[in-house]
Amino acid sequence: MWFGDDAAVLTSPPPGWDLVLCSDTVVAGVHVDLDHLEVADLGWRAVATTISDLAAMGARGRSCVVSVSVPAPVSLEEVMEGALEASLAASCPIVGGDSTASPTATVSCAALGEVPVGTAVGRSGASPGDRLFVTGTLGASAAGLRHLREQSDLSSELVERHRRPRPLLAAGWVAREAGANAMIDISDGLGLDLDRLCSSSGVGVRLDLVPVAAGASEEEALGGGDDYELLIAVPPHIDLAAAFDAAGVEQPILIGELVEDSEVRLLRGDRFVPAGYQHPLS
Amino acid sequence: MWFGDDAAVLTSPPPGWDLVLCSDTVVAGVHVDLDHLEVADLGWRAVATTISDLAAMGARGRSCVVSVSVPAPVSLEEVMEGALEASLAASCPIVGGDSTASPTATVSCAALGEVPVGTAVGRSGASPGDRLFVTGTLGASAAGLRHLREQSDLSSELVERHRRPRPLLAAGWVAREAGANAMIDISDGLGLDLDRLCSSSGVGVRLDLVPVAAGASEEEALGGGDDYELLIAVPPHIDLAAAFDAAGVEQPILIGELVEDSEVRLLRGDRFVPAGYQHPLS
Repeated sequence: MWFGDDAAVLTSPPPGWDLVLCSDTVVAGVHVDLDHLEVADLGWRAVATTISDLAAMGARGRSCVVSVSVPAPVSLEEVMEGALEASLAASCPIVGGDSTASPTATVSCAALGEVPVGTAVGRSGASPGDRLFVTGTLGASAAGLRHLREQSDLSSELVERHRRPRPLLAAGWVAREAGANAMIDISDGLGLDLDRLCSSSGVGVRLDLVPVAAGASEEEALGGGDDYELLIAVPPHIDLAAAFDAAGVEQPILIGELVEDSEVRLLRGDRFVPAGYQHPLS
Repeated sequence: MWFGDDAAVLTSPPPGWDLVLCSDTVVAGVHVDLDHLEVADLGWRAVATTISDLAAMGARGRSCVVSVSVPAPVSLEEVMEGALEASLAASCPIVGGDSTASPTATVSCAALGEVPVGTAVGRSGASPGDRLFVTGTLGASAAGLRHLREQSDLSSELVERHRRPRPLLAAGWVAREAGANAMIDISDGLGLDLDRLCSSSGVGVRLDLVPVAAGASEEEALGGGDDYELLIAVPPHIDLAAAFDAAGVEQPILIGELVEDSEVRLLRGDRFVPAGYQHPLS
């Protein structure tokens, strides 16, 4: 524990707010290859991916705690530097945590957020007829990893997208306020995370397009993972684009529609396999 | 994430309460030897030691999230079984978390608790003249580990104390309400954790006794760690024993007094070395 006491004391939110709590873990050699990334990126990613789960609920961040387990050659300070940068970028300060030795570099983050009472957006509220949006193009992270592995074009923005994903708190917040029925962050690839949203909601999906990031392949966009864009199901009468525009958030991309038959998984009329990123050890 | 959504939604505490947030990690081979303990104990200990940090603030538990990283031969279900048992025993339910593959079995827990506004008890509030109490005898966990290593007397209660430490939420709560100035849970041994409390508060200490658990040695009591008893500094006018008695909590043991000279670390008149449990890899 770095902050003096056994635990951090936080002011409660004012009446009218729910709390939101989540955690995520990044393991070197499983989620992050330290041959290609810095240990600071390990810290960044643990914090950013956890806060991304708050974004997917339509919540805002409040505080987080970070648990760092590293072998002796890995610098705890460098891991924490990346973690702190991610927490500051998301306005969700690190208020505590713990550190320990481990043979495997592992960073867990737990984040506490808040959302107006009763308004948190889950995965299971989507309905047939909802229009399906994504907050940006996909595959950038997978393409960035490919550049790192090939040691090609390392200054590419794709590499930065892989190293330092950004949780889309503003987009999640606006989508919730606009009346989204369901949301999920795309951590394991559009195919897999869309399948999760559909299965939770008991609906099927017809995709018209996969928005591919410049420099990425459609395969990377569909199955690459680690993009942390949000996938949003919105009733047809809601103008999500106008809500994003009014809030100054980058325009969402309409990619398809949800349908009643919960077995349907179609992309441009063909059945797609809901495969996603498979971690090396999983 | 096991609970359907990206994050768990919780009701805020009523007005008049602060939130308390902390985390702790247990790593196989570092904190826990899986040659001697079950993987369920790994889950139990991660949750119990985290909630112990809430106890040391005088807080009550509200919810926790658990991150489990395990290699293929280790059963995620068994780890979670122990974690769930610990969370239920402490009335601090697990509401979410994540699981991933890892070469090293690692369980991180983050716990959210609550305490009446402005009353959380830290480490730094102790004053010269405060009387120093501990909530129970010490060394049981270290003695239990010795039995496990020697494969002797495995049905001993000492072994159970090592396998399944219990966070002392009721004792911490009553000590706070009674007016404790400072508290810490003894995770790394009386010597080391007492030194932390004294250093944070800028005071010295004269110990009259080390309360040794039946079957343990004084060395195990002073430096063994993992007991999770609470160390409590109380102004001399406060009758902590009466407060514990009234609440039906096991009687605290008076072990010494805090003094003005912050250099003083005396046990029965002799200087003691604030050594504590050293983890194998730390």
